[in-house]
Amino acid sequence: MTFEVTILGCGAAAPTGKHNPSAQVLNVHDKLFLVDCGEGSQMQMRKFKVKMQRINEVFITHMHGDHYLGLMGFISSMHLLGRKAKLTVYGPEELKAILELQLKASQTFLEYPLEIIATSRSEKQCIYDDKSLRVYSFPMKHRIDCCGFLFEEKERKPKITKASIGQYGLIPSQIIQLKNGIAVVLENGETLQPETVCEDPEPPKSYAYCSDTAYSEKVIEAVRGCTTIYHESTFMESEVERAKSTFHSTAKQAAAVAKAAGTKRLILGHFSSRYATDDGFREEALEIFPNVSLANEGQVFTIH
Amino acid sequence: MTFEVTILGCGAAAPTGKHNPSAQVLNVHDKLFLVDCGEGSQMQMRKFKVKMQRINEVFITHMHGDHYLGLMGFISSMHLLGRKAKLTVYGPEELKAILELQLKASQTFLEYPLEIIATSRSEKQCIYDDKSLRVYSFPMKHRIDCCGFLFEEKERKPKITKASIGQYGLIPSQIIQLKNGIAVVLENGETLQPETVCEDPEPPKSYAYCSDTAYSEKVIEAVRGCTTIYHESTFMESEVERAKSTFHSTAKQAAAVAKAAGTKRLILGHFSSRYATDDGFREEALEIFPNVSLANEGQVFTIH
Repeated sequence: MTFEVTILGCGAAAPTGKHNPSAQVLNVHDKLFLVDCGEGSQMQMRKFKVKMQRINEVFITHMHGDHYLGLMGFISSMHLLGRKAKLTVYGPEELKAILELQLKASQTFLEYPLEIIATSRSEKQCIYDDKSLRVYSFPMKHRIDCCGFLFEEKERKPKITKASIGQYGLIPSQIIQLKNGIAVVLENGETLQPETVCEDPEPPKSYAYCSDTAYSEKVIEAVRGCTTIYHESTFMESEVERAKSTFHSTAKQAAAVAKAAGTKRLILGHFSSRYATDDGFREEALEIFPNVSLANEGQVFTIH
Repeated sequence: MTFEVTILGCGAAAPTGKHNPSAQVLNVHDKLFLVDCGEGSQMQMRKFKVKMQRINEVFITHMHGDHYLGLMGFISSMHLLGRKAKLTVYGPEELKAILELQLKASQTFLEYPLEIIATSRSEKQCIYDDKSLRVYSFPMKHRIDCCGFLFEEKERKPKITKASIGQYGLIPSQIIQLKNGIAVVLENGETLQPETVCEDPEPPKSYAYCSDTAYSEKVIEAVRGCTTIYHESTFMESEVERAKSTFHSTAKQAAAVAKAAGTKRLILGHFSSRYATDDGFREEALEIFPNVSLANEGQVFTIH
């Protein structure tokens, strides 16, 4: 089952020719989720062939422009392109008034339902739940209210091996029964135990988006056990004081979060434009945590 | 004296990989003016090496997203990049509340003065006046209130030929007197008439930005005699009914405006994404008006 993230932008607020402002698209079991939507995100989606109209949920972390200024354009373009399906936006409560004022000023009457749901500033909450996925928002530590998002696959039912379906002549109702851990009496009177024909399902995977935030124990708690963490790494260690005063993290701090949370892989992003290359971020993080990748526009990371 | 326009975006509202949303930068005697600011304009300025911090005036035609959604990002970036100089934005009165709400939500306290001045929905007005240039706003005919902008060089004083300065040993005060049309008595008692040493100044040039608008006699009046007109040409003649119902123009209608206004050159822009190439716009306009250019991102037009 697909679980991957496409980076649309991984630069920090000050503009740069190298990186775009924050945005990424998650594909979880062929459903698309947009996380943050900085200016130009719709152009990036076109560039990287992301099927915009298939995005039904958008998650906005906070009200700094580099994380949401592309949202109004995205909403307008989907209207112009004939969207009818509902779009749900999760984000800070200030977002609703801004979007509504902009829609009113342009006298745009959307042809699709748009719901804007405020995330909690104070506690971790499950905000989305479907048959295979839950999404949580959780407060981070930034200059203004800011939430991270955790995408968590649900436990799957065991799989019946193909061979055993043929061997025992299993019909669909028996397969469901066995997957649910209930023994089945076959036509020949024999009792078939689930463990005879079931194999363990793939363990559930999860992805946490932590940008923007200072180093935070609360963030570690919120994402504990998550398989892949994307954590902001605006600065290198030489700017640790600046990171503190601006409520951002260094690469080392991001790595410390990954280590403490017991994740398998760390993706770094939200790079300040002050550094000529991004390689130093990875080097500094590797001193603390062994599996570090650098985000880059257009890159697709498969969540293992 | 420089008088040129750099196209940052010349596409219509529906997004396309070919064109960016509306924005252009005018350089008039080395002062930079930004006209419209669609999403991604700041990235385009970086791409085309426009010195953003030298822009002190921004002119926004109307509140459709493809004409202003890049403004908040531009304002924020100038703050992040250390701007101290005042920025004045001229645009629809709805703009002020939107910008202020966004600044409040991000808790951004700009380090430079930002003034937002509402343009008139009903009449042509001089909104900017310096020693060599006047800028007018004038209402156009669109689905929502929308103003075009006319940039008009002032008449210049006559020039004194270099040769005559040497020949008559003219000093600065005498040169100023002659430029102002007053005769000068030379040391030898001879009277020097201005017409003896003056040559006519370059005639003043002007540039009108007319986007978005349906064909409008009022627009023709507002830009009469302007040397170069940029006029929207969203559709070709096959879509003339659609142009009418959406308050846009066809290439032919843009050409009819240029002809009636007695301009020297027409630049077409705001092209709908429905056409595979833009060449057809020019062909249709040429049937009515002889000097037609097509806008394109990165192109610089010198205003003659």
